[in-house]
Amino acid sequence: MPEPPAGRGRPAKLDPVDVIRRKRDGERLTDADIAAFIAAYMDGAVADEQAAALCMAVFFRGMDDGETAALTKALIASGRTADLAAIPGTKVDKHSTGGVGDKTSLVLLPLLAAAGFSVAKLSGRGLGHTGGTLDKLESIPGVRVDLPPARFLDQVRRIGIAIAGQGPDLVPADGRLYALRDVTATIESPALIAASVMSKKIAGGADAIVLDVKVGSGAFMKEVAQARDLARRMLAIGRSAGRRVAAVLSDMSQPLGHAVGNAVEVAEAVATLRGDGPPDLAELCLTLAEQVGADRARLRELLRSGAALDRLTAMVEAQGGEPGALDRLPRAPVQVEVAAPASGFVTGVDALAIGRAVADLGAGRRRKEDPVDPAVGVILHRKRGDAVRAGEPLATVLARRDGEGVAAVRAAYEIGAAPPAPLPLVLEVLTG
Amino acid sequence: MPEPPAGRGRPAKLDPVDVIRRKRDGERLTDADIAAFIAAYMDGAVADEQAAALCMAVFFRGMDDGETAALTKALIASGRTADLAAIPGTKVDKHSTGGVGDKTSLVLLPLLAAAGFSVAKLSGRGLGHTGGTLDKLESIPGVRVDLPPARFLDQVRRIGIAIAGQGPDLVPADGRLYALRDVTATIESPALIAASVMSKKIAGGADAIVLDVKVGSGAFMKEVAQARDLARRMLAIGRSAGRRVAAVLSDMSQPLGHAVGNAVEVAEAVATLRGDGPPDLAELCLTLAEQVGADRARLRELLRSGAALDRLTAMVEAQGGEPGALDRLPRAPVQVEVAAPASGFVTGVDALAIGRAVADLGAGRRRKEDPVDPAVGVILHRKRGDAVRAGEPLATVLARRDGEGVAAVRAAYEIGAAPPAPLPLVLEVLTG
Repeated sequence: MPEPPAGRGRPAKLDPVDVIRRKRDGERLTDADIAAFIAAYMDGAVADEQAAALCMAVFFRGMDDGETAALTKALIASGRTADLAAIPGTKVDKHSTGGVGDKTSLVLLPLLAAAGFSVAKLSGRGLGHTGGTLDKLESIPGVRVDLPPARFLDQVRRIGIAIAGQGPDLVPADGRLYALRDVTATIESPALIAASVMSKKIAGGADAIVLDVKVGSGAFMKEVAQARDLARRMLAIGRSAGRRVAAVLSDMSQPLGHAVGNAVEVAEAVATLRGDGPPDLAELCLTLAEQVGADRARLRELLRSGAALDRLTAMVEAQGGEPGALDRLPRAPVQVEVAAPASGFVTGVDALAIGRAVADLGAGRRRKEDPVDPAVGVILHRKRGDAVRAGEPLATVLARRDGEGVAAVRAAYEIGAAPPAPLPLVLEVLTG
Repeated sequence: MPEPPAGRGRPAKLDPVDVIRRKRDGERLTDADIAAFIAAYMDGAVADEQAAALCMAVFFRGMDDGETAALTKALIASGRTADLAAIPGTKVDKHSTGGVGDKTSLVLLPLLAAAGFSVAKLSGRGLGHTGGTLDKLESIPGVRVDLPPARFLDQVRRIGIAIAGQGPDLVPADGRLYALRDVTATIESPALIAASVMSKKIAGGADAIVLDVKVGSGAFMKEVAQARDLARRMLAIGRSAGRRVAAVLSDMSQPLGHAVGNAVEVAEAVATLRGDGPPDLAELCLTLAEQVGADRARLRELLRSGAALDRLTAMVEAQGGEPGALDRLPRAPVQVEVAAPASGFVTGVDALAIGRAVADLGAGRRRKEDPVDPAVGVILHRKRGDAVRAGEPLATVLARRDGEGVAAVRAAYEIGAAPPAPLPLVLEVLTG
């Protein structure tokens, strides 16, 4: 069938079955098809089963960049968009595709705020084995993440940074569609993932967006090629919406940094902002910050001077944190060391296994409504490439009950006779 | 992934998302997966969007014969099954995949009843451009097709034949699933079609089932390879359920016989039962009857003696037909001849175009709830291969208003200078 000209649509009368059938048969959908389908889904004229069938057809047939941009636009059109015009300077936002021990936002964003960028970040919660920035923030005594839009904007204007949960009125179509995809095995579509992520970033109003696309066992994308494809798609969407976007592909075969959990990750972020954190975390944050135009030497100076930590402290205070909250983080009562079963070199620390172990300790949730335990977690003393002797500690488990998590953490470690080949943390950088 | 042994299942705890994902990823589903999914769909634990996603995944990945048999069984298990044990002899049923001018049931089934078979046929209504046996029967003054099960069985026992609408309690899962597939562009899956057809035939209780699989523009299957695949699938299901099944692939590039409509098709069936019908219709009915074990010479005798027509008359009477009803069929008031625009040979009479023209005259329905007009239709005086001179009648349109349908019928005819190559009516016969 002849391909309709990009950007033009058929007249607006929607036949949802025809749209599903055309995608099923490998035809390209027009902007008008996609806009009408999403609008009708939101007003009830397209049923859940029809949206599910379309998502499954997209899973098999894919969507090109033009279709994905149209879907992003249609999702955004379902709700309000943030107006950051009143905020001076470059507004930046950041997204991670999700990993284990990924406290990057808590370091990167205060650092960017210290560098003079305005950080208006809307964030999500953890699900499954990956952590969420909101859960980590809420582990700080007193901190709230449910900021009304006016207060959120005022905070960005005043102190340069705010991190809050996105309200239900930002891209509501994505919320409904994501919930539908979750129960219909249609999450794993690069086009649908890209549109979902970028709809929220673009509606959030930032000028510059940096994407941290994780690759490896603890990430959604297990292979570099998949991650590169997703990054490329998100960049294309950003470009079509007139935003500056860059993507960093980073390793998630082992957890990032040493701490995995909620409060323990906050503590590690604070240490990193003091220049005293794990090198992989610091390096990733500097690389991400460079993508929005920050200068590496200047960033190092902002860490050394305490200016970056000062922005986190200011944000914690502005969002209800108790005085000295960052020094009074909760810590689970039981701390058990996991000893190395043999001498040699750590050849792998499986990120997925650690993530699941920490979730099982209570730090993660299976369903959106589940509460999370801020105080539990794991601290990794050895990571890939480190030498260890039998009996020395590999990790410490912070738990509610003795023995919990120890076997799972031990099983996540792989120890060999020879040191493994080095594995780069930053795999690729893609810019729009 | 290793294929689970056929016929065994995982334990019954159903994770619908996992079932959808496995089919999506090309894995084979177990009998237990399929049984649990359909049962949960019927009791509400599986949502419409999940069933739609599974149907779309099946559209792309297919189902093998074992899965299709399991689906058929699961569909049947959702409702009651007919118990024909009280009826003596071989119980036969017949199904057509749907065509234009297809009044085969009205000839074949009385003929089989006359030959000593017991005919307990549950039938459907027409939809779109194809006609349905129930609509044709209801064009006979007084005839009812909503027979309660007890009365239906009693009639078969008494006179050897009954044709009625299937009640909502026969394979209700198929009813729900078909309606879902209709709005989600997932009708066109050979596995789903085969399971849908065969679930109703098997639940209907017949020992021997003959399938008329139509091929060509007026049929659902446009190509012989598709039709053969569908027939092969249906035969495999029948075999796994211990039924004798045969399939005939027959041409539907042009309408069957001369009459298309409701009452006009009944009249043509009566003529054929008198030995005075169009040769293609008679030939197809004899071929179909042979597949359940009837002898062609004996069948011809039953037509000649009036015994076959007598069974139709008895059935019409038993189902409420007025005295002499078959001689008092309704006929639309306006009859217009369609003249040949040129001299030559008819090289094609497009079945789909004729079917749509007759539906537009009022004989068809767009939605299940629509009424149909019994009196309108088209009578084809010329068919493929016939010579014609300019101005001679190609067809007669029976309509409510002057001029209706004439242009559409004329456009369905293709006239060429040379006679076309002959096209066999019966393309293939497949037996179980």
